[in-house]
Amino acid sequence: MNKRTLLAAAAALALPFPALAQSAAHDPVALRDAALSDNLAWEITEGLTTEVGQRLAATEAEARARAWAVKKLTALGFKNVHIETYKMPLWERGIETAEVLGGAAQKLAIAALGNSGSTGPKPIEAEVVAFATLADLQAAPAAAVKGKIVYVGNSMTPTQDGSQYGFFGGARRAGPSIAASKGAAAILIRSIGTDYHRNPHTGVTSWVAGVNPIGAAALSLPDSDQLERLLKRGPVKLRVQITAGMKGEAESGNVIADVPGSDPSAGIILIGGHLDSWDLGTGAIDDASGVGITTAAAKRIMDAGQPKRTIRVVWFGAEEPGGFGGAAYAKAHANERHVLAQESDFGADRVWKFETNLPAGAKPIADRLATVLAPLGISRGRGTAHGGTDVGPVINTGVGVVDLSQSGLRYFDYHHTPDDTLDKIDPVQLRQNVAAWTAMLAVTANAPEDIGPIPKGEGE
Amino acid sequence: MNKRTLLAAAAALALPFPALAQSAAHDPVALRDAALSDNLAWEITEGLTTEVGQRLAATEAEARARAWAVKKLTALGFKNVHIETYKMPLWERGIETAEVLGGAAQKLAIAALGNSGSTGPKPIEAEVVAFATLADLQAAPAAAVKGKIVYVGNSMTPTQDGSQYGFFGGARRAGPSIAASKGAAAILIRSIGTDYHRNPHTGVTSWVAGVNPIGAAALSLPDSDQLERLLKRGPVKLRVQITAGMKGEAESGNVIADVPGSDPSAGIILIGGHLDSWDLGTGAIDDASGVGITTAAAKRIMDAGQPKRTIRVVWFGAEEPGGFGGAAYAKAHANERHVLAQESDFGADRVWKFETNLPAGAKPIADRLATVLAPLGISRGRGTAHGGTDVGPVINTGVGVVDLSQSGLRYFDYHHTPDDTLDKIDPVQLRQNVAAWTAMLAVTANAPEDIGPIPKGEGE
Repeated sequence: MNKRTLLAAAAALALPFPALAQSAAHDPVALRDAALSDNLAWEITEGLTTEVGQRLAATEAEARARAWAVKKLTALGFKNVHIETYKMPLWERGIETAEVLGGAAQKLAIAALGNSGSTGPKPIEAEVVAFATLADLQAAPAAAVKGKIVYVGNSMTPTQDGSQYGFFGGARRAGPSIAASKGAAAILIRSIGTDYHRNPHTGVTSWVAGVNPIGAAALSLPDSDQLERLLKRGPVKLRVQITAGMKGEAESGNVIADVPGSDPSAGIILIGGHLDSWDLGTGAIDDASGVGITTAAAKRIMDAGQPKRTIRVVWFGAEEPGGFGGAAYAKAHANERHVLAQESDFGADRVWKFETNLPAGAKPIADRLATVLAPLGISRGRGTAHGGTDVGPVINTGVGVVDLSQSGLRYFDYHHTPDDTLDKIDPVQLRQNVAAWTAMLAVTANAPEDIGPIPKGEGE
Repeated sequence: MNKRTLLAAAAALALPFPALAQSAAHDPVALRDAALSDNLAWEITEGLTTEVGQRLAATEAEARARAWAVKKLTALGFKNVHIETYKMPLWERGIETAEVLGGAAQKLAIAALGNSGSTGPKPIEAEVVAFATLADLQAAPAAAVKGKIVYVGNSMTPTQDGSQYGFFGGARRAGPSIAASKGAAAILIRSIGTDYHRNPHTGVTSWVAGVNPIGAAALSLPDSDQLERLLKRGPVKLRVQITAGMKGEAESGNVIADVPGSDPSAGIILIGGHLDSWDLGTGAIDDASGVGITTAAAKRIMDAGQPKRTIRVVWFGAEEPGGFGGAAYAKAHANERHVLAQESDFGADRVWKFETNLPAGAKPIADRLATVLAPLGISRGRGTAHGGTDVGPVINTGVGVVDLSQSGLRYFDYHHTPDDTLDKIDPVQLRQNVAAWTAMLAVTANAPEDIGPIPKGEGE
C-alpha cells in the first residue's frame, strides 16, 4: 500500500458518508435530480443543428454558429459573453468519387479526410495495393506502393470507453502521410467506424513536414468489404478523384460565457465542448450535445445562486481540424487561474464512469463526486482523468480535471459521418448527462478545499 | 361454416399426419433439413453483388448481370439456360442536390425517384409547401401548389408483413404526378423507409397520361425531420437540382433455367426473383438474395433426382421500374401450362408465414406444406397468397401460388437505398429461406394431385 492509497483509505474511513452540500442553494443531490427534467441541453442541440446545420471550422457556417451562440448565451443570462477570434488554415472538401474499373465496374462511396490533398484536376487511374493494417503499410517497401492507390484496413469494434479509436485511428491520422512518403498516388482507408452504412467516416489526417499531401479518403465499411472481396478475386484498378485541399487562411473563434463566482481568488472552473463540426452531418453528437450539456449544467448552477468559483463555459471553435480553438483559448487566458478544466465531447449517451486528476489537497472532492454520481449509474473509474482536445492545453499547464465518460458503444457508428444528426440524441440519456455535469459543478464550484495546481509528474 | 371451411376441417380429420414423402428421393423433411447447411444462396448473392454491383434495369450493368447468371446457372447444371430480351424505356439518375437557402443555409440529402423528370439545366429556387400526407396534397387547391416545391410526409413504421408499404408508398408512386398536375416546380417526399440514416429511399413513381414529369426525389428521414423542424420556424426556400430523366429505349431481359420434370403434362412450377436492382446499392436484399434462394432450392431438388413437374427458375429483368421482365415472360410463355408461380422478393430474413391460393383439388398440398414448414418456425397464415410483381402476370391467368413470407421488420431500413449491400444478409436466415423453398418445391413438384387452373373469382 503506497502513501496515496493509504491516504485514500483513511479518507474513506473518516468520511463514510461525505457531506455533499456546501451550501443549501447548491445542494448537489437536489440540483442533480432537478436536472433529470432538463430541456435546455436539447433546446441547444436541436437549435444549433437545425438552424445552423454543419459547422465546418473557419467557414461562414461556423461564424453563423458563433453568432447563434452569443445570442443564446446572452439570452440565458450568462455574463461576459463574447467571441475571441483567431486565424487558421481553411480546408474544404471538393469532388470525391471512386469507381472500380473493368469487369466488376461499380462506384464506391468515399469521403475525403480533413486536410486531404487533391488527386489533381482529372481523375487518376491506378491499381490498388492493400494493407490489412497501418503497420503493414509502414513495413512495405516504397517500390510496392509507388504510383498505386493504397488501401488500409482495420478491425475496429465498439467499446464502452471508445478505446479502440486511439489505436485504429492511426490509419487515418498517419496513414496518408506514410503512403505519400512512399510515392502513393492516393490512399483510401477503411473508415474508422463501427457501422455498416454507406456513409464514410471523415476526420483529420496530418502530413509530416516535407511530405506533399495526396488525395486521402475513407471508404464506408460496406464499400471496404466490397473492395476486400474484389481484391481476393484478383487485381483491382480504380478511378479516383478527390479535389479537396487547403484554401488559405480564414477566421475561426471561441465563444466564452461566465457564471461569475463570489470568490475570484478560488479560480475558474472551465467547461465546454466544441462548436465546429465536420461538414457531412449536422454535428449533433459531435459536438452540439457537448455544448448543450455543459451550458445547461452551468445555467442550473447560476440559477440556484452565485457559486464560490467562476464557472466558464467555452464553445470552442475548430476542434476537428486539430484543436485550434483550445490552443487559442489557453494562450489568450494563460494569466488566469484555472483550477479544473473538463469537456463533453463524446456524444450524448449516458455517463457511465468518472475519473479525476486532482491535486493532493483536493482529493476529498473525488469521494464526494462518487457519492453524488453513483445514483445516476456512474462508477468511479480506476484510471486518471485526461480531458480532451479542447481543454488539453489548459490541463497541460498543471490544472486538475474531472472526466465524465459517456458510453461509446454506438458513438463510432455515427462519428464524423453524414449520420451525425439530431435523431441520434436520446433525450433521456442527454438529461442524465446534464444531471451528472450539474452535480459535478455543484460539488467542485463550491468545494471548500483549495484546488491547487498539479505539479508536473505528480498527477494521479 | 361454409363449404370451403367444412372441406378443410374434413381434410384435417382425415389427415392428422399428412404423408409428406411422395418419393424417397424427394423426402421434403430430409431435403429441408439438408438445406439448412446451404451455401449456394450465399454464393450467388455474394457473387452477383460483388462481381456486378448495382444492376439498374436496361443498363450495361444489368446486361453484365444476365451474362453472369447464364454462366452460373449453366455451371450449376440447369437445363435450357437462356436469355429472353425485350425493349423498354431507360431511366437514369443525374445530378441531385437540394439546399436550404437563407439564414439556415445547409445541404439536404436527396435521391431522385425512378422515372423522375428534370428540374432543367440549372437549379430551381422556390418556397416549400408541405403536406403531412398524400391525402392532404390531393385535397390542396392548385393555387397552393403552383410554382412551389412540394414536400409530402408520411408516418411509416416497421411491420413483420411489410404491410405499411402499400399505403405509405402511395406518396412515392402517385404523389409526384399529383403535384405536377397542380403545377408544382418539384416534389420532395419523405423517404418510404424506416431507418434514420442519410440514405434516401428511391423507387418508382408513375406519371398519369398527359402530366409532364417534374423533378421528384426522396429526402432521407433525418433530412425530412430537419426540413419539418425548419418549416415549424417559418417559410423555407430551397435550391433544388434534379437532372434525371428518360434516355430512350434500351434492352433488358430475363434469364431462364429449367429442372425438367418427368411428366411434362403435370405443368410447370415457376419460381424466381429479380436480377435488376436500383442503382444506389448493390441490390443484396432486393433482390440478389431472392434469385439466390430460389435457385439454391431448385438445385437441391434437381440434385436429389428428377421431379415429376418441371421447376423453372427465372431471374427476372427490370422489376424495379415496373415489372417489365414479369410482363415479358408471361407474354412469351402464355402457351405453356404453369400450375404454380411464386417469387422471393422481400429480402433474406427468415420466412415466418406461408399462405396459398390453390385450386380446390389441390388443397391437401397446403396441409402438407403446413406440416413440413412448421419446424422452420413458419406459421400458416389466414390470408390468401398473391405472389408479386414478377409472377403476377402469370398468376393473373389463373395460376396457383404459394407465398413464403419473409420477416420485414428491417427490410424498409435498407430497401432502395445505398445501404442495400451484402452485409445486410444474415447467412443463417438466408439458409432458413432455402430450406423453406426446398421443402415447398419437394412437396409441390411431386404432388400426386392435379394442380388445375383457378377459375376467375374462385381463388381462396
